[in-house]
Amino acid sequence: MTDSKKPDLKRRNLMVGAAIGTGALLSMNSVQANERRPGPGSSAVGTRADTESVERLPFGGVVSFTPLHELHGTITPSDLHFERHHGGIPRLDPTQHELVIHGMVAQPLKFTLGDLKRFPSVTRTCFIECSGNYVTRFGNQSTPQITCGLTSQSEWTGVPLATLLHQAGVKDKATWLLAEGGDAPLLSRSIPMAKALDDALVVYAQNGEAIRPEQGYPFRLLLPGWEGNTSVKWLRRIAVSDAPFMTREETSKYTDKLADGNYRQFSFTMDARSIITYPTYPATIEPGMHEIRGLAWSGRGRIIAVEVSTNGGQSWQKATLQGPVLDKAHTRFNLPWRWNGKATEIQSRAIDETGYVQPTLKQLQAVRATTSTNYHFNPIVGWHIKADGSIEMTETG
Amino acid sequence: MTDSKKPDLKRRNLMVGAAIGTGALLSMNSVQANERRPGPGSSAVGTRADTESVERLPFGGVVSFTPLHELHGTITPSDLHFERHHGGIPRLDPTQHELVIHGMVAQPLKFTLGDLKRFPSVTRTCFIECSGNYVTRFGNQSTPQITCGLTSQSEWTGVPLATLLHQAGVKDKATWLLAEGGDAPLLSRSIPMAKALDDALVVYAQNGEAIRPEQGYPFRLLLPGWEGNTSVKWLRRIAVSDAPFMTREETSKYTDKLADGNYRQFSFTMDARSIITYPTYPATIEPGMHEIRGLAWSGRGRIIAVEVSTNGGQSWQKATLQGPVLDKAHTRFNLPWRWNGKATEIQSRAIDETGYVQPTLKQLQAVRATTSTNYHFNPIVGWHIKADGSIEMTETG
Repeated sequence: MTDSKKPDLKRRNLMVGAAIGTGALLSMNSVQANERRPGPGSSAVGTRADTESVERLPFGGVVSFTPLHELHGTITPSDLHFERHHGGIPRLDPTQHELVIHGMVAQPLKFTLGDLKRFPSVTRTCFIECSGNYVTRFGNQSTPQITCGLTSQSEWTGVPLATLLHQAGVKDKATWLLAEGGDAPLLSRSIPMAKALDDALVVYAQNGEAIRPEQGYPFRLLLPGWEGNTSVKWLRRIAVSDAPFMTREETSKYTDKLADGNYRQFSFTMDARSIITYPTYPATIEPGMHEIRGLAWSGRGRIIAVEVSTNGGQSWQKATLQGPVLDKAHTRFNLPWRWNGKATEIQSRAIDETGYVQPTLKQLQAVRATTSTNYHFNPIVGWHIKADGSIEMTETG
Repeated sequence: MTDSKKPDLKRRNLMVGAAIGTGALLSMNSVQANERRPGPGSSAVGTRADTESVERLPFGGVVSFTPLHELHGTITPSDLHFERHHGGIPRLDPTQHELVIHGMVAQPLKFTLGDLKRFPSVTRTCFIECSGNYVTRFGNQSTPQITCGLTSQSEWTGVPLATLLHQAGVKDKATWLLAEGGDAPLLSRSIPMAKALDDALVVYAQNGEAIRPEQGYPFRLLLPGWEGNTSVKWLRRIAVSDAPFMTREETSKYTDKLADGNYRQFSFTMDARSIITYPTYPATIEPGMHEIRGLAWSGRGRIIAVEVSTNGGQSWQKATLQGPVLDKAHTRFNLPWRWNGKATEIQSRAIDETGYVQPTLKQLQAVRATTSTNYHFNPIVGWHIKADGSIEMTETG
């Protein structure tokens, strides 16, 4: 139950609208001609306009990037949700595929898609982000898509994992579980029982309809705010235990080197991040008013502020957040800005309800003892606006 | 800015989960075999699972119905948003199509899609519903799709109409405007200035991407909570005036006969309504636990309660509303129910924040002096569960 105030359409927008001053002057009644020829009729399934093209960027067969700079609002169309898989997309028969829950439980159980749909359902909107997001950028000619497009947001519907675990009767000593996917490598992660009983869901619907095959059809685990690979797709097995399972994905991968030479394991939570989506490479802009737009999110909770600098980090202004601002969810921010035509750099930084402030790249590299980047790098990203209006991505201090 | 509590996964769900008792018992370790054969790789645009089929129901070339009973959550996939058009779908060139604002303004203006995208943007989630929703049902073999599928919900992004009107300089005496679409019949409606300055948007994005052609590409008017035809698609002209324009769509159509023989004109607001989406025709159910699911919404504001009867209206229970509950938005409701195998009827009724309670069909027919139905009929709908588990739609008293 939430408060959802109407968007503030009034004072700020009117003022900025006047300042932007776009829209051509018109001689009275110079309305366009219309051929008034009837068009095609209604259909079973719609298609995109043939004058629009918006696509993921596939790379290496194992990943594809959401085109953040070409999207609006906060929902990612399901067929543009980023992909990351380790052995391709399995084709699973929804009438045959089962989820097994076993191990330290009173009674092992198995569930089909039909079984899961009968349980009390929960709907929530949240992001899923790959912990390798940002590693993938390539220099100044990086779009927001390639810099930060391994995050997407959907409205998910499914059954609380707690309900299923309760059904099986988890034993008192159980503290961890293994979540195993039904893809070729049987991707597996150890999950603390506390998270499983908190807000974990087994979801079968995304943005109103069945989950897409590349997102885990017929169902996947959803661990809101945690690194994407723990939201195990094509979920087939949950083994309950009293210790983590030390799978390949949490020993040789998905661990983070620290300054003292140790590696940080089970670094599940995605820290707060923001990315400007306009104006950014490859756009070219003219002097005058622009609305700086972007997305911010945190795996720790709600975003409480996004600060934007239009002078390379010397000073910061608060952007407007578009409500409703949800827990562990992409949040759209906006800030009107008059570009004077001189070279500058625009940046954004997110602050979440825990007080966490999105760090700089140098701060992250110091903690992680590297001059490179790796998992869980969420630095402030800058966009260098050149005097000719062209734009480049910059790695800011 | 809203409060978005985490879904309540705890007590109720655990208890009901245990009560449902679905999920088969399992011999230890009888996990399914997996061929472990790598699947296809990542792609530019995803597709639905070939084992799923979910479609609109097109009728007469001028309408198609959203399959409410096959969807989850509250977002309607854009290609399944209902359609209603009066002269087919125009193919408009987004670089050429213009919105003209003229009439009682200081300076007539015109805007292309590119112009509109430069203005301060607003994102909001709300439903659009055709005022003819419910008229279309056909007897007891009606699904929720054909009974009530002329409503859909999207996250919309665009520019406040107030911003554009301010830019043109609306004269003090102006009280109405004409919104005209770019389809073959140039569908036109008169809109009070108060609504235009309140929460009206000119939207160019739906669920994150460009609006689909059948939804008004490149942009449409969006009047949250008002009958769908006023959210004029393919918007091409706004004429500002000091009186309504008395177009065909508000004289010969879209008016409502009353008991005294007069007709109600400019009946813009969509009253509160709810529809159960499961269990409904054509499903057949078994005795035992089920989750009654449905959608409720109101053009007057937020839904504050949905009451469900499982005994043909003799008594009512409050359903759980899935948050965030937004203003003028589809709201998902759920109620666990144990069916004892005896014939009965389930019903739902919505209550909105203004205190409006969804009426019965007889109540509506009395006010509107008809034994039939017409625009703005939002009665309680019942679903007759027969002893064999089959289900029929019923028109309840």
